[in-house]
Amino acid sequence: MRGIQNMLAEDRECRDIVTQLAAATKALEQVGFRMLASGLASCLQDPEKSAAEGYPIKEVERLFLKLS
Amino acid sequence: MRGIQNMLAEDRECRDIVTQLAAATKALEQVGFRMLASGLASCLQDPEKSAAEGYPIKEVERLFLKLS
Repeated sequence: MRGIQNMLAEDRECRDIVTQLAAATKALEQVGFRMLASGLASCLQDPEKSAAEGYPIKEVERLFLKLS
Repeated sequence: MRGIQNMLAEDRECRDIVTQLAAATKALEQVGFRMLASGLASCLQDPEKSAAEGYPIKEVERLFLKLS
């Protein structure tokens, strides 16, 4: 993020900034998808425990859609 | 970005982290789309100047697809 702000401030090549933006976006999405994949695995292993902790499978699905 | 790292380190609620990830991703995409919308406008106003500067319309289209 800081790196991208510097690139914008330094008026760097548009195509280089777009490449960094795409990489940063992908990295953020992957963090989210990893978290949710692990949440989904918990739901499937023990749906009642997961729901009791506030994450029924419908909620995990909703969070997936929020990121996609 | 720093804020999200702190949230992960502090083991905050999954749904709050996902909300922040989605917001950060959207913000990054918007920076890119704004840059490219302005690049596209330049291409349409003066295609030869834009191409001479290394951004023919095909290249701006390619960069759009990279972010989408």
